[in-house]
Amino acid sequence: MPGVFITFEGGEGSGKTTIAALIKEALDKEGYQVTLTREPGGVEIAEKIRDIIHDVKYTNMDRKTEALLYAASRRQHLVEKVIPALERNEIVICDRFVDSSMVYQGIARGIGIKEVYEMNLFATENILPKRTIFFDIKPEEGLKRVYANKDREINRLDLETIEFHQKVYDGYLSICDEFKDRIVKIDASLDIDGVFQQVLEKIREVL
Amino acid sequence: MPGVFITFEGGEGSGKTTIAALIKEALDKEGYQVTLTREPGGVEIAEKIRDIIHDVKYTNMDRKTEALLYAASRRQHLVEKVIPALERNEIVICDRFVDSSMVYQGIARGIGIKEVYEMNLFATENILPKRTIFFDIKPEEGLKRVYANKDREINRLDLETIEFHQKVYDGYLSICDEFKDRIVKIDASLDIDGVFQQVLEKIREVL
Repeated sequence: MPGVFITFEGGEGSGKTTIAALIKEALDKEGYQVTLTREPGGVEIAEKIRDIIHDVKYTNMDRKTEALLYAASRRQHLVEKVIPALERNEIVICDRFVDSSMVYQGIARGIGIKEVYEMNLFATENILPKRTIFFDIKPEEGLKRVYANKDREINRLDLETIEFHQKVYDGYLSICDEFKDRIVKIDASLDIDGVFQQVLEKIREVL
Repeated sequence: MPGVFITFEGGEGSGKTTIAALIKEALDKEGYQVTLTREPGGVEIAEKIRDIIHDVKYTNMDRKTEALLYAASRRQHLVEKVIPALERNEIVICDRFVDSSMVYQGIARGIGIKEVYEMNLFATENILPKRTIFFDIKPEEGLKRVYANKDREINRLDLETIEFHQKVYDGYLSICDEFKDRIVKIDASLDIDGVFQQVLEKIREVL
């Protein structure tokens, strides 16, 4: 497939969303066509699925139901938005992808990485990013940022304990190890410009 | 697991829902504890997923998104309603289960039976009904009944062509062949009492 598929990964408050917007702005100025998108969501059907996943009412949602809903949302978003943009030869920057499922549902919720990955193959048909950037910041630091932002809506994942977020963090470190060729780490504890410069450099390497 | 898990399968207008209610009434009178339920839906989270699947707006829903949403709804319903009822030693009669996905998404939509079945194993962990009753009626006869019922809400599946419903019918016949020990056919073209008597007999065989 033409185009360049790039994904951002990391825990809550790691700054992915903020940096993604700045990266798009910078690459736009250089004349690249950039599609910026996010999971779960990004297209109408996927946003509807996101609403169910994030609804704070559903504390009794089974972990496998959650994993299947993420995969359903991923599939629709991939078919409707990511693949068409790649076929137009664009750079696609996607906030979260299959690595989030491996870490959040596979490791932190304990379903198992392999089971989650294989079920996701049904959705992704093995389409993987050319580069994945892991925003490395300790969970307690990330959560501090989340709670400092008063405009942010609280979702079901925010109800999790610090132990859950620690498992997510450890999970990310282990998949960074496992997929060294695809996933690169950047120090997300720096200020916005510091993070931005690192991310831009890692993206330039694959353009 | 204790309890008896029974599922009803068939095309649109095959009378499953009507007969299920009558069967529950008859078995209740004999002193059995019967849980009557349906897919997709049956519990709140699953009903929310059902709303997305059935929404007539979403004509651009990818067939694999659809299959994943059915599996997500199935998982939640299984964990929250079916398994607890079986553990209470009840008879569970469920209107549609994994066979519907194999036939509708696997065969009629063309994803492939094996792919759909394997993805569903993530959701079902290989829990299968003790008996599945296929309500055998030609699609044109079934659809006639559907359109004669003016109270029924039109859903996204009703927008399909007769060719689609014919594929569903042929798909059911082929899985009846493949899973002879579990799936039994009844003639659903008879009147209500005729269908009811056959279904009751097939259920008695496994009680």
